[in-house]
Amino acid sequence: MTTIKPTQREETAAERWARFSPIRTGDDYVNSLRDRGVTVYLMGEKIAEPVDHPIIRPSINALQATYDLATDNPELATAHSPLINAPVNRFLHIVESPQDLVMKNRMQRRMGQITGTCFQRCAGLDTISVLHSITYDMDKKYGTPYHQRYLDFLCEAQRNNVIIGAGMTDPKGDRSKRPHEQADPDLFLHVNRRTEKGLYVTGAKAHMTGGLNSHWICIMPTMNMTEADKDYAVVGMVPGDAVGLTYIYGRQSCDTRALESGDIDKGNARFGGQETLVVFEDVFIPWEHVLMDGEYEFAQPMVARFTAYHRASYVCKTGLGDVMVGAAASIAEYNGADAASHIKDKLVEMTHLNETIYSSAIASSHEAQPLESGIYMNDEMLANVCKHNVTRFPYEIARFAQDLAGGLMVTLPSQADFDHESTGPLLHKYFQGRPDIPVESRTRMLRLIENMTLGRNAVGYLTESLHGAGSPQAQRIQILRGMELERKKGYAQDLAGITLIATDAD
Amino acid sequence: MTTIKPTQREETAAERWARFSPIRTGDDYVNSLRDRGVTVYLMGEKIAEPVDHPIIRPSINALQATYDLATDNPELATAHSPLINAPVNRFLHIVESPQDLVMKNRMQRRMGQITGTCFQRCAGLDTISVLHSITYDMDKKYGTPYHQRYLDFLCEAQRNNVIIGAGMTDPKGDRSKRPHEQADPDLFLHVNRRTEKGLYVTGAKAHMTGGLNSHWICIMPTMNMTEADKDYAVVGMVPGDAVGLTYIYGRQSCDTRALESGDIDKGNARFGGQETLVVFEDVFIPWEHVLMDGEYEFAQPMVARFTAYHRASYVCKTGLGDVMVGAAASIAEYNGADAASHIKDKLVEMTHLNETIYSSAIASSHEAQPLESGIYMNDEMLANVCKHNVTRFPYEIARFAQDLAGGLMVTLPSQADFDHESTGPLLHKYFQGRPDIPVESRTRMLRLIENMTLGRNAVGYLTESLHGAGSPQAQRIQILRGMELERKKGYAQDLAGITLIATDAD
Amino acid sequence: MTTIKPTQREETAAERWARFSPIRTGDDYVNSLRDRGVTVYLMGEKIAEPVDHPIIRPSINALQATYDLATDNPELATAHSPLINAPVNRFLHIVESPQDLVMKNRMQRRMGQITGTCFQRCAGLDTISVLHSITYDMDKKYGTPYHQRYLDFLCEAQRNNVIIGAGMTDPKGDRSKRPHEQADPDLFLHVNRRTEKGLYVTGAKAHMTGGLNSHWICIMPTMNMTEADKDYAVVGMVPGDAVGLTYIYGRQSCDTRALESGDIDKGNARFGGQETLVVFEDVFIPWEHVLMDGEYEFAQPMVARFTAYHRASYVCKTGLGDVMVGAAASIAEYNGADAASHIKDKLVEMTHLNETIYSSAIASSHEAQPLESGIYMNDEMLANVCKHNVTRFPYEIARFAQDLAGGLMVTLPSQADFDHESTGPLLHKYFQGRPDIPVESRTRMLRLIENMTLGRNAVGYLTESLHGAGSPQAQRIQILRGMELERKKGYAQDLAGITLIATDAD
Amino acid sequence: MTTIKPTQREETAAERWARFSPIRTGDDYVNSLRDRGVTVYLMGEKIAEPVDHPIIRPSINALQATYDLATDNPELATAHSPLINAPVNRFLHIVESPQDLVMKNRMQRRMGQITGTCFQRCAGLDTISVLHSITYDMDKKYGTPYHQRYLDFLCEAQRNNVIIGAGMTDPKGDRSKRPHEQADPDLFLHVNRRTEKGLYVTGAKAHMTGGLNSHWICIMPTMNMTEADKDYAVVGMVPGDAVGLTYIYGRQSCDTRALESGDIDKGNARFGGQETLVVFEDVFIPWEHVLMDGEYEFAQPMVARFTAYHRASYVCKTGLGDVMVGAAASIAEYNGADAASHIKDKLVEMTHLNETIYSSAIASSHEAQPLESGIYMNDEMLANVCKHNVTRFPYEIARFAQDLAGGLMVTLPSQADFDHESTGPLLHKYFQGRPDIPVESRTRMLRLIENMTLGRNAVGYLTESLHGAGSPQAQRIQILRGMELERKKGYAQDLAGITLIATDAD
Repeated sequence: MTTIKPTQREETAAERWARFSPIRTGDDYVNSLRDRGVTVYLMGEKIAEPVDHPIIRPSINALQATYDLATDNPELATAHSPLINAPVNRFLHIVESPQDLVMKNRMQRRMGQITGTCFQRCAGLDTISVLHSITYDMDKKYGTPYHQRYLDFLCEAQRNNVIIGAGMTDPKGDRSKRPHEQADPDLFLHVNRRTEKGLYVTGAKAHMTGGLNSHWICIMPTMNMTEADKDYAVVGMVPGDAVGLTYIYGRQSCDTRALESGDIDKGNARFGGQETLVVFEDVFIPWEHVLMDGEYEFAQPMVARFTAYHRASYVCKTGLGDVMVGAAASIAEYNGADAASHIKDKLVEMTHLNETIYSSAIASSHEAQPLESGIYMNDEMLANVCKHNVTRFPYEIARFAQDLAGGLMVTLPSQADFDHESTGPLLHKYFQGRPDIPVESRTRMLRLIENMTLGRNAVGYLTESLHGAGSPQAQRIQILRGMELERKKGYAQDLAGITLIATDAD
Repeated sequence: MTTIKPTQREETAAERWARFSPIRTGDDYVNSLRDRGVTVYLMGEKIAEPVDHPIIRPSINALQATYDLATDNPELATAHSPLINAPVNRFLHIVESPQDLVMKNRMQRRMGQITGTCFQRCAGLDTISVLHSITYDMDKKYGTPYHQRYLDFLCEAQRNNVIIGAGMTDPKGDRSKRPHEQADPDLFLHVNRRTEKGLYVTGAKAHMTGGLNSHWICIMPTMNMTEADKDYAVVGMVPGDAVGLTYIYGRQSCDTRALESGDIDKGNARFGGQETLVVFEDVFIPWEHVLMDGEYEFAQPMVARFTAYHRASYVCKTGLGDVMVGAAASIAEYNGADAASHIKDKLVEMTHLNETIYSSAIASSHEAQPLESGIYMNDEMLANVCKHNVTRFPYEIARFAQDLAGGLMVTLPSQADFDHESTGPLLHKYFQGRPDIPVESRTRMLRLIENMTLGRNAVGYLTESLHGAGSPQAQRIQILRGMELERKKGYAQDLAGITLIATDAD
Repeated sequence: MTTIKPTQREETAAERWARFSPIRTGDDYVNSLRDRGVTVYLMGEKIAEPVDHPIIRPSINALQATYDLATDNPELATAHSPLINAPVNRFLHIVESPQDLVMKNRMQRRMGQITGTCFQRCAGLDTISVLHSITYDMDKKYGTPYHQRYLDFLCEAQRNNVIIGAGMTDPKGDRSKRPHEQADPDLFLHVNRRTEKGLYVTGAKAHMTGGLNSHWICIMPTMNMTEADKDYAVVGMVPGDAVGLTYIYGRQSCDTRALESGDIDKGNARFGGQETLVVFEDVFIPWEHVLMDGEYEFAQPMVARFTAYHRASYVCKTGLGDVMVGAAASIAEYNGADAASHIKDKLVEMTHLNETIYSSAIASSHEAQPLESGIYMNDEMLANVCKHNVTRFPYEIARFAQDLAGGLMVTLPSQADFDHESTGPLLHKYFQGRPDIPVESRTRMLRLIENMTLGRNAVGYLTESLHGAGSPQAQRIQILRGMELERKKGYAQDLAGITLIATDAD
Repeated sequence: MTTIKPTQREETAAERWARFSPIRTGDDYVNSLRDRGVTVYLMGEKIAEPVDHPIIRPSINALQATYDLATDNPELATAHSPLINAPVNRFLHIVESPQDLVMKNRMQRRMGQITGTCFQRCAGLDTISVLHSITYDMDKKYGTPYHQRYLDFLCEAQRNNVIIGAGMTDPKGDRSKRPHEQADPDLFLHVNRRTEKGLYVTGAKAHMTGGLNSHWICIMPTMNMTEADKDYAVVGMVPGDAVGLTYIYGRQSCDTRALESGDIDKGNARFGGQETLVVFEDVFIPWEHVLMDGEYEFAQPMVARFTAYHRASYVCKTGLGDVMVGAAASIAEYNGADAASHIKDKLVEMTHLNETIYSSAIASSHEAQPLESGIYMNDEMLANVCKHNVTRFPYEIARFAQDLAGGLMVTLPSQADFDHESTGPLLHKYFQGRPDIPVESRTRMLRLIENMTLGRNAVGYLTESLHGAGSPQAQRIQILRGMELERKKGYAQDLAGITLIATDAD
């Protein structure tokens, strides 16, 4: 459907990297996204320059903040990379120790505090992490050259300080069928042809967090594969502006408030998340950027290890939780209710739940174990426990925040009414609470809570907490697999005085 | 500020009623709202005809459905009124028995199923109910003529089949101060002058559910009053188009989707709620429509009895809960996941929570007791228990619905993208799930769940469930008051073998 | 094994009743249990006179209280029986209206308050209730004489004011096999032979609440049956002292404290529950007392209707909940902590949960509908919802009670230590709390909470709440069956704008 | 009251240690408790030799297992002590790193798995830990010699491998009064006189876990003190057999089953917990063993740091949780129900909750920070979060275990009935479930679950989880103190666009 520009088709890896220049600051990052000529649709329109689109920009700002944090707090947000023997953004750093994972978690929480939304860079980091061991393991088994290709790619990525997006979730079509069984073969992304220089893929990746804001997209399988699914067992690095890509932007609650004048009703005017459907039509990947091609039996461990990393990455929500606690405490104060014991008690409960999530995340990081490739991986059980708590507690925290906010959060008139010559004075008169708190502060805080519990960033704080890195049932399946019932039955039988021989006769 | 039209000022009650004609159908109702010349602001603009405004109309449709139900199912939604010896809409009927309250609850649940939102007519009914006994009790104590005035007003209201809105919640200003202590006396609505023909009030009522869609607004105190607050202890009936009223429309999550073309992204295109700030500037009320004027000690029982009725009215949320269960079951089916045991189990849990709410509501109705005026009132403890469960369970039900919906609910592109010549085919290709379910059905169902859990009707299903008829702590205070600890301590002491005399010596 | 006394074998129904004389008081009841010659084993010993056994007696006292309540509060605990045209104990009354069920619930709550345990008489009442309609329906289909036999039996039961126990739960053996497939045919109770005068049954009934304290045991099927299970589809009335019965008493937590001197450590010295295994060896039932014999297809509705009644009967736990609330409030007071806001808040939560259970129960009663036989039956959905809440909330209430009790509840020395000449003074010195509260009152209250949350009556308050009338999953299955998903899907589809025709094409 | 033996009175520290010889094995430990001549009362009797008492012995066995584990798994349960340059039992090891705390947590979980009860040695370890920094800090401020005394004591303790019990909780009397304000000065333990050789204390310590099984008791303040409470601000080491001590044993649910023959009904026949009241009557402590005497302002930090260690020590309950999961899985299997999806789902939930506790504990250990004395201390917030989850989740886990157990758990006859010639065959016939599982295995597993949810070890698994190391509200207060609201408000204000200057004017 899109017209393919054949001259760009079979670029080498080097040619692709040649178009980049190292990003040093947040501003560099924003500029790096300009003039890429990507095909983007949003609300039925093709967007000429996404960087300047009011709905898209907050999501770019959130990623920009990951660069700014590296500048502002290098101890937290950078690490020394032995690959290039230089400091790199921690979002591009290979995990060399449990402490690296803990520092990552702290950085994620901090980013959540700064942006109050999904800053979209974790899945890419977790992709880098999982590929380290998976490429190593494939090479060991098959003598393939994936691990070196991976290291080469990562060196360039670190030097250029780029964003890598994780293209994992296929549309999946009829869920009762395997990839190769689907009526439409494209419902899982797959290799549609191979040449001397590389391979071509067709399909789509759904729910791509920050897809449009990434310099590279790593395509990878979304689930275990069988031999018949071989062409679907593909991992490769695709530039975000590759020929054949089409981005279709996902709607979010209250997204069009970004188009309104005034910043109050947006709640969080600066930052937002981004989810896109990315369609791949015969998209070329040079062999240097192919990291799996048919080794289907590695799809399952790839997904399992990815979730071990990624489910702990949901610690970011504790940063958003900190914002919720702060917002709830602020609005209680503005309402003059902060001394009430039930208010304090609710703030304690919000904190308790938030810190419970935090503890599961960092526990899974501290308890990380090395894999054969030398990289460390989060403890699987605890990472699943972390994510499973994330599917529950933010909803409770959000409810408490709404409780403390009061009903005004959903009955408040628009900023335009507050600014209007007729209604403005009436609203300022009647919405004055504590005399020392400006009405505007109160409305701003209410709009922030609305933003995070019903509005645009509720997507990131709530629904993504439920489904990102796997829906609740996915964690339960992993917990079921890892819970070692036989060992625990042994403890019980031992204490109960049941001997194993006894099970043969009464 | 608004220019007062003196000729209209001191209308008699009869003159006011003369402008009405009986409403027989839902269409009659919609027409009755046209050309009223009310002053309404919405998003910084004065609205010429609210009835035709796309954001406002869904809230009118919801009220229209209360008329349509009376036509379609008179057994459920009408009752015989002894006052006018004719059938009346149940929303205008005096409670003559516990069964009347149960039928009201059933009607409310049905209305929730039909509209999936707040249909805005319950507070008015509960206001009528509480005034029956309060006017009676005041007259008994003071020989005032309120009860007859009330009955006269209600006869007209029933004959004309009008909507009565409850103007209860004052802006309240500094919550540590009583009404008469506020820096600005208008922060609680109050009588500002009295004439031979009536009295005038100034102030505002916040969070007025369906305020703009009502023919009459009943102003009444929002909390207990002291003698110094006498001028604030006022109850009266004000026509919705009275001189001196200004309506300022409250924003809701995703409200402006109503302005977009296409009906899919709205989620629930037909129905919505409405919350307004209503400002009263020197608004006249003829004596015939004054039902309290200074009897401050009745403010407290008025609020208490109102909440007894109104907290059970939140049974309406079980109707919305039915929609949530149905939506969750539908999307699970469309996703091809409805046979999974964990899906069924979540639907069971949603139903269990929803029916628990229902049981508390109807129990409080079945257990109603008569007051001295002859009207029946819900059991207070059980009504508070009902509402308290409403502050919790809809949030859980909503989370389950989001769980079953899957992440697509918050990453789905806009309808305009689905309809676009370039992106439409891609989206229909890649969002096909079960082959026998149209992509559009799937997107519609996802948008409905979004609407009720994050969007416009999440206001009604969630936040209003939290704060309407009193925030959670308000119910806890009532439960504390009603829980009869001494009686229960007696049971425990009796079983423990503790004699009361024993407390005097060891 | 037991020696059968042949002369007693084929007693007629009349002969069996002739051994009874009307019970008028609680004392009459206790005396009626004496000298029955029943075969009872408890802790490895055959008990000569159960009535005087310290472990058994508290369970008899609980049933005695059902008689005493009828004397003390006849309005609550008696009803007019049209069958004998006289007042009868409400535990023997046929449900003639929803109000009868509501009154039953109130009586059950009251009994819970009085006894703080399981008073063992509900299952018998619910058995009477279900047999009214089931015998009627069998007769209608088959022309059998069961309904008249049933009425005759009930008249005698009412005249003699007896206790009827429900013998429902078979041991079940291998749960993957039907009754007739079991290796040992006795694992479900069944007819083993028939004579002209009656039939004989063999098998056992487990978990028989109050089995030993009953004058009659109604045996009935525990689950649905197939044609091959015909001999297992039997309902009949067996005197508690019938030849061939052996009772083996179930242990309960802390049961042997009843054997200790002193009443403090017992917690609730007067009242307790009782669970027995009742073994039936070739036990005769005259035809007049046979109410089902082979009509296997009625086993399933019999169980379903029984649970509709019986799951609402768990409202009794709100009476125990009242005791828990009172005990928690008392101990907080004795500890000097009752003014703390978090204490009050926990008491509110306990009450809220308790009243939620109550509301589900009485709602299911108020919403009862008549069956063809003329008897009313609880609303099934709400009865299941009630019981399902009972499987959860008492555990939470118990945890709150333990919270308020403080750790002393499980570290307190024995009464013998308090009474000892050396340790007594030390304990009275060091366990003095608030100076005006006797140490003994504090210890008594702590022991009561221990009794209900860990001790003997924790069996009745907690574990029985979980499993009685069906374990949690049993309610979930019933809720699944009754939740009318298609209707609810219709609401959602209607609001989402999905037309049914649309499912045929996209 | 007790006759004081003056010759023993003023023993030196050296004399006291001289009575010990190094404990090398679990058996050594048991023998070390013999013939100590301690004054112990249990159920109104003075116990000649506690070691051989059937109720007491299981609690000794649990401590014995801490010695056995050191032998069986030295990597887990020992550490190298730089103080004596030798391996020591980890329960006597100074925390030199976060990893030491993590290893401690793993050992605690393992001990929970082995014993299924409270093994009573954690509070002593946490006492040692807190004294390291507190004695150091006191010396720094006042030039006192406490830290060296502490190190000397610890060297001896390590060499002799003794048990140290924590004597913290005073009876407290009237909770509205400070120690020195109590009517009876002994309601808080205090110095009653001082001599050249040492000081004497009088009072009592309640809830002393494993008090009787300890070689030494460390007395210390239970809460913050003021100058007027100086004599109550005392820390000292007292031998468990010191003159002037009286132990009064606390009852536990089902404690007397230990006196019955047969081991099945005990549930866990080998292991149990122990709580005692220890009365101190003019008990001498030589100066070498006095570690605080009047430095009242250190009482508060001492308690705070103790709870930081001790609240994370409740990780032991995850070991008991493992037993619960194993017992629930076993009984489900024995019942033939283990393949049901709802059963698996409940096991997953139990595991999820259990691992959530574990993650909070080890997170607080991994995140430990060094204090000035060089010792590491758990992260306070996360330790409180851990303990707060412990006050909730074991109750839920226990409920799930009871759910899977089925009602038989509370209706099962006694072992004596199973062994009886008449009833034994009946019980084995009727309680046969899955044909390949012995009836005895099933009954043993049910009794274990009873033991841990209602019986003796429910004290340790449930009530102690609630109140040990501080009741729930104590954690909430600590979380309130540590939750840094101002910082979090700042995040919210920043995102909402509220500038601090704005709070001065509107």
